[in-house]
Amino acid sequence: MTITYLERARRIMARIEALAAISEDADGVTRRFGTPAFVAGQALVRGWMTAAGLETCLDGIGNVRGRWASVRPGARTFVLASHIDTVVNAGKFDGPLGVLLGLDLLEQLAARQAELPFHVELMAFSDEEGVRFHTTYLGSKVVTGAFESSLLDRADAAGITLAEAITHMGGNVAQLPQDALPAAEWLGYLEVHIEQGPVLWERNLPVALVTAIAGQQRVELTWRGMAGHAGTVPMTMRQDALAGAAEFVLTTEAFGRQYGHELVATVGKLDVRHAASNVIPGEVACSLDLRSADATRLASAAAELAARAQTIADRRELQLTWTLVQHTPPAACDAALNELLARAIRDSGQVVVPLVSGAGHDAVPVSRIAPATMLFVRCFRGISHNPLENVELPDLAAAVQVAEQFLMLLAAQND
Amino acid sequence: MTITYLERARRIMARIEALAAISEDADGVTRRFGTPAFVAGQALVRGWMTAAGLETCLDGIGNVRGRWASVRPGARTFVLASHIDTVVNAGKFDGPLGVLLGLDLLEQLAARQAELPFHVELMAFSDEEGVRFHTTYLGSKVVTGAFESSLLDRADAAGITLAEAITHMGGNVAQLPQDALPAAEWLGYLEVHIEQGPVLWERNLPVALVTAIAGQQRVELTWRGMAGHAGTVPMTMRQDALAGAAEFVLTTEAFGRQYGHELVATVGKLDVRHAASNVIPGEVACSLDLRSADATRLASAAAELAARAQTIADRRELQLTWTLVQHTPPAACDAALNELLARAIRDSGQVVVPLVSGAGHDAVPVSRIAPATMLFVRCFRGISHNPLENVELPDLAAAVQVAEQFLMLLAAQND
Repeated sequence: MTITYLERARRIMARIEALAAISEDADGVTRRFGTPAFVAGQALVRGWMTAAGLETCLDGIGNVRGRWASVRPGARTFVLASHIDTVVNAGKFDGPLGVLLGLDLLEQLAARQAELPFHVELMAFSDEEGVRFHTTYLGSKVVTGAFESSLLDRADAAGITLAEAITHMGGNVAQLPQDALPAAEWLGYLEVHIEQGPVLWERNLPVALVTAIAGQQRVELTWRGMAGHAGTVPMTMRQDALAGAAEFVLTTEAFGRQYGHELVATVGKLDVRHAASNVIPGEVACSLDLRSADATRLASAAAELAARAQTIADRRELQLTWTLVQHTPPAACDAALNELLARAIRDSGQVVVPLVSGAGHDAVPVSRIAPATMLFVRCFRGISHNPLENVELPDLAAAVQVAEQFLMLLAAQND
Repeated sequence: MTITYLERARRIMARIEALAAISEDADGVTRRFGTPAFVAGQALVRGWMTAAGLETCLDGIGNVRGRWASVRPGARTFVLASHIDTVVNAGKFDGPLGVLLGLDLLEQLAARQAELPFHVELMAFSDEEGVRFHTTYLGSKVVTGAFESSLLDRADAAGITLAEAITHMGGNVAQLPQDALPAAEWLGYLEVHIEQGPVLWERNLPVALVTAIAGQQRVELTWRGMAGHAGTVPMTMRQDALAGAAEFVLTTEAFGRQYGHELVATVGKLDVRHAASNVIPGEVACSLDLRSADATRLASAAAELAARAQTIADRRELQLTWTLVQHTPPAACDAALNELLARAIRDSGQVVVPLVSGAGHDAVPVSRIAPATMLFVRCFRGISHNPLENVELPDLAAAVQVAEQFLMLLAAQND
């Protein structure tokens, strides 16, 4: 008796709902790393894994791991994963969709006692969002051996350190180094995740192939001119810091537009110091968020925008400071895995849409040591990190079919 | 024995310093209406007036008034005035310069027992800045009969009403209507004041003739687009509220520049709601401050900028709201008095620079019922409402000479 993909999607959806009901607050979904709600969610997911017939464990940082082992000597491990922590007032799908879709796949493998040429391990990462300790990918960093022990001293808003939080939730700080899967043992990595953007929604398609995760440069700029009385300083004698910043906002927008989908450039914050309606702005601070999957493009875009900002400042006799506050290199998905995933998409009757992820994912640290790829699933109007986040059942069913086909192709290839 | 204008300027400067030493705080100059520092300042100024041989009084709202009366039957009153209240952390010259320069002129009249064809009354207005009760020109409104009794119920930040503040400082609420000088009794009004702008500083000239005080429209705008993830929404699919507001900032600046000195247009406040560096701005609020001495130009400029804002919003698919929050009509200085003041400037060996005041002054309410004019004095780099506010002695001497010559010409004309 076979069960249809739509029925499997319905079962996954029911689990997504059940996990979403476990929250720090009653209204929305909030399950930050190490909180009682998080621990309850962990237990629920582990229970499902155990019931599915997997070998399960909680590792030192609180990742829930379930393994369907291969009997093949020297078998490597293919990892299916996403995260089960959330932002504050989150949606239900960001993270859990990938974990519970993976659970469904392993459940099927276990049900038919599948003999694969590799181990399959499902990982529910404990902290991807970084809400509590302002550092992302804690779970996947441990698994990839990239966890820096200096992070253990970081404190949350209540002054509790990461080490204390780990211990308090029943984790094990001493065990973290042993929890890493050595590079040689990784066969590869697949993460299924909602797109968190509007491309699939606009193109009316269920899934996309992620070719890369954009690198990011985050810059803080200040523009200093001369504050003055809005009534008494003639237009030609002004050094208006806001006018300079406004020119930069539009320059940034135009610059981003000329690169199509290769780059996004955003001024998200803009703050006029000592602002008053009758005072010419003397100082303005603004942010720049620049992302591209192409490291060269990202670097040249940052340099070009810095030069343009300086030109604006010089022409307007403003003082400009440009401070790089964050730089994350792009992470390319693995070409061979992507080819396999594209085949699985086509085999499932879908169009292959290659997409760059502008948001970060656990695939970023994984890609540093193992071949990784990602499958995006359409979400309602591209809305994410919001209770309005939604995924339709047929799209989820399509994703299940693609991911399962991918595993089959991978098994055949490695046989 | 005659005393030079420079010596008189030095004496005025000493009084400006003495008055500036009376402050609510030790560091700067802060003398808000009705405070103990204000009352002490009042007493100092009244003492100087009395010592100069003037008939003095404190009127109901706390204006210090000193009169050099004419014996001519049916003589009208010429008023020399400015204010002695200040903003918080003010300079020493904004207000007191005009009062203490006027005191010097009346002192000279009294010293030589001058017989003029009109009364001369020196008024030190008690509240021009409106810092405490958020309503300007309290002193000059009472003197011109424009004081609305509804203002008495206004409360300051501590909940003290204007009526209570007046009573507490020894004023007299019941007397306010009688303190007005009826329109028929006004011969005219001269206010000497620092420019509070950079025009004289840039042109390297000591004084200017004020032809009008600009009218003002103050508008609040909101721009609503769609917030989104800075990494996942492609540039072409954005409705960025900040980009729309930035375009308006630059449109406003370019619009203001094309009118030379006839108009100033300023976006002083700009606030991105729920701003984050990785979020595309969904809503932005900003201000517009528009000033012109020409009522028609002011109205058409506001209409034109509203239309341009709407065009920007439509093209970008943003929702725009445009709310007029303040509208003050322009106040023209009196043509005949201005001609006389121009002659006095020329007689004193100075160049006549006609200037529109972009800042409001007590001359605004006075101009509604009597011929009024103003003389501006250069201030250091145009800086005002700031402890850096400064006036050089030679400029002050030039202003004394011009104002005295003006009074002489006026006396000759009315003889």
